[in-house]
Amino acid sequence: MYKETNIRSIAKGISWRVVATSTTIGIVYFFFDRLDLAIAAGMIETVLKIGLYWAHERAWFKVKWGRKKIEPFNLWFTGLPLSGKTTIADKVYKELEALSIPLERLDSKDIRDLIPSIGFTREDRNRHMHRIGYLIQKLQNNSISTVASFVSPYRESRKAIREMVKNNIVVYLKADVLTCKERDYKGVYERAEKGELQNFSGVNDVYEEPQHAEIIIDTQVSSADEAAQTILEYIKKHYVK
Amino acid sequence: MYKETNIRSIAKGISWRVVATSTTIGIVYFFFDRLDLAIAAGMIETVLKIGLYWAHERAWFKVKWGRKKIEPFNLWFTGLPLSGKTTIADKVYKELEALSIPLERLDSKDIRDLIPSIGFTREDRNRHMHRIGYLIQKLQNNSISTVASFVSPYRESRKAIREMVKNNIVVYLKADVLTCKERDYKGVYERAEKGELQNFSGVNDVYEEPQHAEIIIDTQVSSADEAAQTILEYIKKHYVK
Repeated sequence: MYKETNIRSIAKGISWRVVATSTTIGIVYFFFDRLDLAIAAGMIETVLKIGLYWAHERAWFKVKWGRKKIEPFNLWFTGLPLSGKTTIADKVYKELEALSIPLERLDSKDIRDLIPSIGFTREDRNRHMHRIGYLIQKLQNNSISTVASFVSPYRESRKAIREMVKNNIVVYLKADVLTCKERDYKGVYERAEKGELQNFSGVNDVYEEPQHAEIIIDTQVSSADEAAQTILEYIKKHYVK
Repeated sequence: MYKETNIRSIAKGISWRVVATSTTIGIVYFFFDRLDLAIAAGMIETVLKIGLYWAHERAWFKVKWGRKKIEPFNLWFTGLPLSGKTTIADKVYKELEALSIPLERLDSKDIRDLIPSIGFTREDRNRHMHRIGYLIQKLQNNSISTVASFVSPYRESRKAIREMVKNNIVVYLKADVLTCKERDYKGVYERAEKGELQNFSGVNDVYEEPQHAEIIIDTQVSSADEAAQTILEYIKKHYVK
């Protein structure tokens, strides 16, 4: 969040003065046909009004009226492990940032790296989702939109997020387990199949497909760039004015 | 977070025009001693420059230069149950909000009401604190300061918060267990002493006093209003410019 510095108000004052004094000189010259007096009037105007403009800027900086609260949204990526959530969410985040939308990126991995003992049981995951929902609420209170990527395999926890936040946009990245396994550069599917990982969505735990996703991407058909474009168009259409 | 609406830029244009045109008329009249022509010049100027000023405003709205990122702080209230954390933190929050500081209030109770299964063991509490630290980080990334009130009885978790966030201000509300018991309108100390509540700081679990608190309030000496004033003065001195 930003505030207008005094130096910015001064610079605005000077840039405006260049525009405004040229106009004044033109007008006075047009009326009196005396360029010398027109320039003299312009010079006096310059000195007087730079100060007045600055004072005017600072006064308006205190006035809240006419500033519109930015409406936040939550872009929620769900899908099996390795369906492409982080990759596509990162691309979308980068493009949205370039539009100067106040934004935070929330990724499952970052949080689980920070707090390794979160757990993967149904109860652990649901509790985790409630916390993430609380975090998004606090960010949204301050007009900050979020790009969140979490496996979030259970309907009830995605529903909880939808009830907690505003302008929830579920992006379901569709990919069957076989395709995700092919992409498995981390070797996690293999470890899950060997039983080394428990509660692994798609192998030894369920992934419940979303019924109400705003955007569905078939990752076996669309490339990551195409997927990001589809999502960006949706955001631009509904949330960027 | 706010954006400047078009209507705000137009209103600024008009209010500035009133100031500026009066000045122009004065200057032209001073040079040429012809009030009629001075007023005519002023009228032409008004029409031309309202449009120019608006365009100038909109152009500057796109320019990021000269806007300063607001520096966030974290006010962290720690102390025994019923030492007065919530009461004093609420007062401070209200006063800081009036100063137009972008702000969020985080209270132990709100989060525990939302997610009742957080737990009170040392491990549970420390994990909880890491999550709160993460939440504060995300808010601070967006210039949002926080007023947080948590018993936070362990040194290691307060240390973790300090390492995770910027401009951490620990406010230690000092009160001995006897005093807190006297204030116990909730009956929680009684329940803890009966063994109905486990891991209750000050009764059947330790409260480790902070060694590096920025502000220490002796709640047996200061009233809640006095405490809030002390804290506000600290914030005004260090963080409000």
